[in-house]
Amino acid sequence: MNQGITKSNLEKQFITESGFRFDNAEIAYKTWGTLNDSRDNVILICHALTGHAAADEWFPGLIGEGRIADPAKNFILCINVPGSCYGSIGPWTINPETGRPYKSSFPTITIRDMVKFQQMLLDQLDIKGIELIIGGSLGGMQALEFIITDNRIRSAALIAMGKSHTPWAIGISHAQRTAIFSDLKWNNGDYEKDDAPFQGIAAARMMAMITYRTPEDYNRKFGRKLQNEDGQFQVESYLNYQGEKLAKRFDALSYVSLTKSMDTHDVTRGRGSAEEVLKKIAIPVEVIGINSDHLYPVYEQKELARLLGNAAYSEITSDYGHDAFLIEFEQLNKIIEPFLKKQRNRSKYYDTVKSL
Amino acid sequence: MNQGITKSNLEKQFITESGFRFDNAEIAYKTWGTLNDSRDNVILICHALTGHAAADEWFPGLIGEGRIADPAKNFILCINVPGSCYGSIGPWTINPETGRPYKSSFPTITIRDMVKFQQMLLDQLDIKGIELIIGGSLGGMQALEFIITDNRIRSAALIAMGKSHTPWAIGISHAQRTAIFSDLKWNNGDYEKDDAPFQGIAAARMMAMITYRTPEDYNRKFGRKLQNEDGQFQVESYLNYQGEKLAKRFDALSYVSLTKSMDTHDVTRGRGSAEEVLKKIAIPVEVIGINSDHLYPVYEQKELARLLGNAAYSEITSDYGHDAFLIEFEQLNKIIEPFLKKQRNRSKYYDTVKSL
Repeated sequence: MNQGITKSNLEKQFITESGFRFDNAEIAYKTWGTLNDSRDNVILICHALTGHAAADEWFPGLIGEGRIADPAKNFILCINVPGSCYGSIGPWTINPETGRPYKSSFPTITIRDMVKFQQMLLDQLDIKGIELIIGGSLGGMQALEFIITDNRIRSAALIAMGKSHTPWAIGISHAQRTAIFSDLKWNNGDYEKDDAPFQGIAAARMMAMITYRTPEDYNRKFGRKLQNEDGQFQVESYLNYQGEKLAKRFDALSYVSLTKSMDTHDVTRGRGSAEEVLKKIAIPVEVIGINSDHLYPVYEQKELARLLGNAAYSEITSDYGHDAFLIEFEQLNKIIEPFLKKQRNRSKYYDTVKSL
Repeated sequence: MNQGITKSNLEKQFITESGFRFDNAEIAYKTWGTLNDSRDNVILICHALTGHAAADEWFPGLIGEGRIADPAKNFILCINVPGSCYGSIGPWTINPETGRPYKSSFPTITIRDMVKFQQMLLDQLDIKGIELIIGGSLGGMQALEFIITDNRIRSAALIAMGKSHTPWAIGISHAQRTAIFSDLKWNNGDYEKDDAPFQGIAAARMMAMITYRTPEDYNRKFGRKLQNEDGQFQVESYLNYQGEKLAKRFDALSYVSLTKSMDTHDVTRGRGSAEEVLKKIAIPVEVIGINSDHLYPVYEQKELARLLGNAAYSEITSDYGHDAFLIEFEQLNKIIEPFLKKQRNRSKYYDTVKSL
């Protein structure tokens, strides 16, 4: 996992919305392909909650020859968000004032902070234009904030999220965090990495796995078969495995930090109504919902498409639920390919007009 | 809470499916109205996971003058299930062999055990006939097992459950149990009542509350309003309150025991196919689904209605989700009243025929 990641530092001071300052903030990212001379052939991929910069590992159907993000044509970039545990600054970053990890004193990172953090790298790399920004779930929230604040972006695909984190989604986050906090190993976030609240984050993950899928998916996959002779059902064994797997690869402080980041998502905060904020966005946006998504139901994406200045709505049909954006690559390609082609034809037309 | 509960003991030995034996098992129940001379005017109400025998407290819209369960006409009975913490045998019952509570050595209680336990009381009370059995969720599972095994019952209303506990529902149970187990206070079930895994059961309850409701319900109720100045959202404060409230009134060992009981629900176990088991049931059954129930989706109730020998399907329209069976009393009454009236008219007709 995490092959080919570049670890760098931000040259300028990164200051969060809450006023917290980071000098030389560590930033991890991965790139594919080559930046063109005009430095504007970028596809920016934003990752979700437990994701990381190695987008080819979790978005394999979208990156590669002949795919939407083709390294032969584009300079593809994915940046690890602050608060995560995959190379960028996060709760385990050393606080230079104490010489010890920030842990729970790591500041709240808003979605806007995530975007600002990534923009600072884009500036450092002297990126002039972004052909497409794409993200699902937390990735979609970043992409939406990006297009509100960054005029380098020429088109966007926003998947399985909405204009703000709803009470429903906040409640689900909160229940998961409570499961982590109820593991005494949590100790208010003051634990060591090898003695972490593994059970708590496993319980949180199980809960999450349920909100990411559907009854239909589980019922088809498992039936009432028992896994073994001790009477455990297959689905229990599966959830145990998923819980342990995440506990091994993901940190509880980061899980708490990033779920709180998601809860801050709200395009209206300090800006006026959603109508006012979103109608101004003139770039073409494809908003994509999943018919069985119970975490971010399709009415949220339909609302976004309605409020954005120049957006269309498409739907993935799947019984995988929210997770479909990491599974149904064929459908995603079928939606995004023509969308992207249309933008490319239009830009070719303008190039021709300009050169006349 | 729990006003007017009768605490009694089973005269015969109660033996669970797994072969565990209880002498003089404690049994708690509540009754309303008077048993008629033929001892057959019974309405039996089966309670759900965190419910108890005082059905008037959690099913208020169904019990009372002019309501479905009218004490002036019927002898209404609700019995606390074994494994619970409201008076019948459960994990805190004293094991006569050790003089200490069973705690985690309390045996697995299947839905069939719950029914057998209640049937022993019915026998003791010399009940000859049950006009209606009604239950939702875990209560519905008991009611379904009851009509398979007890020919005293003349009609049934089964709400918001299916022919077996699905992998989906088992997965949700399992995630909740894992949250309890991840609280170190759980200590494999060997804790004291005043030093219980309160945080774990609170986290489990929060998760449950989410599966009992819907995005629509939460989004309408809470918005993104903050509860207080520390930045907690209203929905977080609400879930904290709900979690603490359950932790105060319900025991973690019982929660684990009863959720496992639900997971055992399967009418086919040792009996043949669902078709064979259910088509034999000739009494009229009203199966009631809730259009927004994400825990036991309506296709489960439709399936039951199709498989049962003499059943009809009705649907409650609500955005409360699974919880609607404890809220939408007007709709429940509208469905069950005519159903019951039809059975009563039919039985009056037969009484007339008999007396001719």
